Amino acid sequence: LSKRATFPFDSLTVDPGSDAPMTRQLYGLLRSFILQGRLSVGDRLPATRALSQQLKVGRNTVVAAYGQLLAEGYVTARSGGGTWVALAAARVPVCGVNPSVAQPALSRRGALIASRPQPPKTPGKINLQPGYPEAATFPFSTWARLLAHNAQRRGEDLLSYHDYSGHPRLREVIATYLGVARGVHCEPEQVIVVTGAQAALDLVSRIILDEGDCVWLEDPGYLGARGALLGGGARLAALRVERGGWLINDRLLPPPRVIYVTPSCQWPLGISMRIEERLQLIGVAERYNAWIVEDDYDGEYRFRGPPVPAMHGFDSTNRVIYIGTFGKTLFSSLRVGFLVVPRALSAPFGRAVSVTGQFAPLILQLTLADFIRQGYFAMHLKRMRRLYARRQKLFLELCDRHLARWMSVAENDAGMQLLGRFVWPFDDQKVAAAALKRGVDVQPISINFYQYPPEHGLLLGFAGLDERETIAAVAGLEATFRDLESTTNHFRLAP
Amino acid sequence: LSKRATFPFDSLTVDPGSDAPMTRQLYGLLRSFILQGRLSVGDRLPATRALSQQLKVGRNTVVAAYGQLLAEGYVTARSGGGTWVALAAARVPVCGVNPSVAQPALSRRGALIASRPQPPKTPGKINLQPGYPEAATFPFSTWARLLAHNAQRRGEDLLSYHDYSGHPRLREVIATYLGVARGVHCEPEQVIVVTGAQAALDLVSRIILDEGDCVWLEDPGYLGARGALLGGGARLAALRVERGGWLINDRLLPPPRVIYVTPSCQWPLGISMRIEERLQLIGVAERYNAWIVEDDYDGEYRFRGPPVPAMHGFDSTNRVIYIGTFGKTLFSSLRVGFLVVPRALSAPFGRAVSVTGQFAPLILQLTLADFIRQGYFAMHLKRMRRLYARRQKLFLELCDRHLARWMSVAENDAGMQLLGRFVWPFDDQKVAAAALKRGVDVQPISINFYQYPPEHGLLLGFAGLDERETIAAVAGLEATFRDLESTTNHFRLAP
Repeated sequence: LSKRATFPFDSLTVDPGSDAPMTRQLYGLLRSFILQGRLSVGDRLPATRALSQQLKVGRNTVVAAYGQLLAEGYVTARSGGGTWVALAAARVPVCGVNPSVAQPALSRRGALIASRPQPPKTPGKINLQPGYPEAATFPFSTWARLLAHNAQRRGEDLLSYHDYSGHPRLREVIATYLGVARGVHCEPEQVIVVTGAQAALDLVSRIILDEGDCVWLEDPGYLGARGALLGGGARLAALRVERGGWLINDRLLPPPRVIYVTPSCQWPLGISMRIEERLQLIGVAERYNAWIVEDDYDGEYRFRGPPVPAMHGFDSTNRVIYIGTFGKTLFSSLRVGFLVVPRALSAPFGRAVSVTGQFAPLILQLTLADFIRQGYFAMHLKRMRRLYARRQKLFLELCDRHLARWMSVAENDAGMQLLGRFVWPFDDQKVAAAALKRGVDVQPISINFYQYPPEHGLLLGFAGLDERETIAAVAGLEATFRDLESTTNHFRLAP
Repeated sequence: LSKRATFPFDSLTVDPGSDAPMTRQLYGLLRSFILQGRLSVGDRLPATRALSQQLKVGRNTVVAAYGQLLAEGYVTARSGGGTWVALAAARVPVCGVNPSVAQPALSRRGALIASRPQPPKTPGKINLQPGYPEAATFPFSTWARLLAHNAQRRGEDLLSYHDYSGHPRLREVIATYLGVARGVHCEPEQVIVVTGAQAALDLVSRIILDEGDCVWLEDPGYLGARGALLGGGARLAALRVERGGWLINDRLLPPPRVIYVTPSCQWPLGISMRIEERLQLIGVAERYNAWIVEDDYDGEYRFRGPPVPAMHGFDSTNRVIYIGTFGKTLFSSLRVGFLVVPRALSAPFGRAVSVTGQFAPLILQLTLADFIRQGYFAMHLKRMRRLYARRQKLFLELCDRHLARWMSVAENDAGMQLLGRFVWPFDDQKVAAAALKRGVDVQPISINFYQYPPEHGLLLGFAGLDERETIAAVAGLEATFRDLESTTNHFRLAP
């Protein structure tokens, strides 16, 4: 009885006007009293009838709240009646996190994966980072209309995921597109739709690669691929690429299990692989029974002449896995990419994405299928090809006029970025850092090298910038170079 | 000259009315002639002037097409003039894939990952598979409106991905929601937005786990988690769960690096973890410096009493990683889930998703943030709680009336599925196969067991079925059981 007298009735009020059900309010209050120590182990709770009268609520409300506390173990009930605060409740930590407690570590491979981030762009700066398409003129109203239309499909389509490999409609549209535009001839069943090219890289790094397997990776080569492959435990062998082409010599490199290449528009050099090199590479892959991963990230953007057909079309031996993305042709945050895999791998890849969760949202798949089928994609590509060609021209002119003293930028038949090579021996990472302070976000080339001595220069993503931004970007770079010149040798490379 | 006479001029026509530029048409035709062998190595192409007259196209068109063939190595040009089919071209395989050629294999872990698919639902059947929410009454018109609105944001927001961990607005909304609804108190920075709960599982299986590390996984336990953990190379130790609770005894199991649990609504048993068990588990994790992964897949659906707060709120030692999803509360194909990680892990996880490509599409993130902030999510949850409570009641009544002879289905306070235990010793996989033939797609419980002897029964996802479908589903099961009774002992378990 003395216990009942100390029960903090005064603080216990429920609000009938609140959105929260009375039971929930009461349960929450009693639980917090227990956790805060206002009710201690062994304290008896008021009888349900008494409490219901006190609070002017139905007795069932009190019974339900007690029942919940009982179910969770905060209180115990005795057969003779009565409800007591349980022993276990006392052991619940009262306040938040204790920062002094040691925390388990990341796994070794977790630390490795987390050490290889994709370079993010810096918000609020002029974005001259490579890989970002034009955004302002994307037909978002059309996209929005198609999205809204697909969001209201109430049928089988949208509401569940019965085929993890991708929606049949999108797979078919992609297969058709690839045949026409990229020389990739495949059945819709060979297309696996995933959440972007990076997910595709991560997936192949696990599905066709075991820890310690050798991968030939272009040097210089795409950072995102390097991260995914290293994250998958690959042992990398540098496949040297120079302005003149790919140096394919299997006597210089360990036998590969996978060969990763960007033949349409090499990252970051921008060259395209000649037919002899393609055949030679397929020959090497055949000899070692290796896979070829063809990352066709930029294949659509060729300004002079028709697009170069993908390597996939040359392969009669079922060993090319093709990776494509819509993040560069539509908009970066779309997160839809795809793989084309040999027929025998279609089912295993579909099962694998069901485990890795890398299959793409159906609503985006359906919207994209409509966007392509209704001709908007082709129209957009055509407009972008023209726009990027114009933008490249303007960018080159400005670079030539304002930056030639420090950096030579060569024109390119393809792609959304250009390579600027330093005339002086600057350290490109320091230049990029200085440019960022001048408001221009740009990628140093050297980070794309990993075994061979890096070239220094900038990878200049001109495609996403309108005229005003282009002028501002070049002005920012000019100011950066002038700063460097006027200061000490701080930015010079060590000899 | 004899060569020129045999040049297949007749088949070479371009269509000025076509969408494809003339250069592209001509290039494509010549390339196909070469690949088909109609032009052979050493054959000379017509002079550009002659061909342009023949085809009635500008000479520049022909020059550009030849240039492209030259660039790709199909033809060579001699300094004295003239263009010949190159040697390399002859080596391009003429037709498609040669099926007799050996293909490299999947990696060992690839084969493992692909051997653990998430069970898909079968289209065209009544979907009694667990985990599918109500779909017909989801406010898709609101969703569509918000999607369309967000698709037209032209600002920084939509067009690029500068923070791989998730859009700040959604992270904040999720953090607030979790505090109020799930007892999970965290900063927005601790929320990592990913493409669904399966991606979250796959991610933690790599980031906090190395190959060969021991994971305590509930037995019976969630198949999707088992697949992701095995795919990550985990050595599993069965944490036994029975109707009475979790058998937490660290002397019976090897020291864990990770403990995976579903404490709010255990999969598949549907029980919730008592406070003593939660504290005991945290104690074990502390002793071995192990992580706890709390998969709160169904925490929102509790029909009687308030939701049980997540285990995350009990942890003062920074070792609980919380996984949530919107695929069960909104719709399955949404593909947005999240993790709540300790503060120190926020940056590494953000970097890791940039490598694995498991970050979610911004357009869906922004739409979801609006949907939650504008109150639609809470409203939908409230409606679904009522709806599912009603549906569970109806489903139980029908099971009791029609199926009690073969299967007992117990009511549950929470969740979107119920456990049906066989009264007779049926083999549940055979029953599920027979039910599918009767038009009902349902999951056998036994597949959720992996070390302990499996129980046999059905996991019945009642939540997504309206009254008509519920009646049809129970009728289909009744017919299935009657078939079994009338046939031999075919479906009986071996004694």
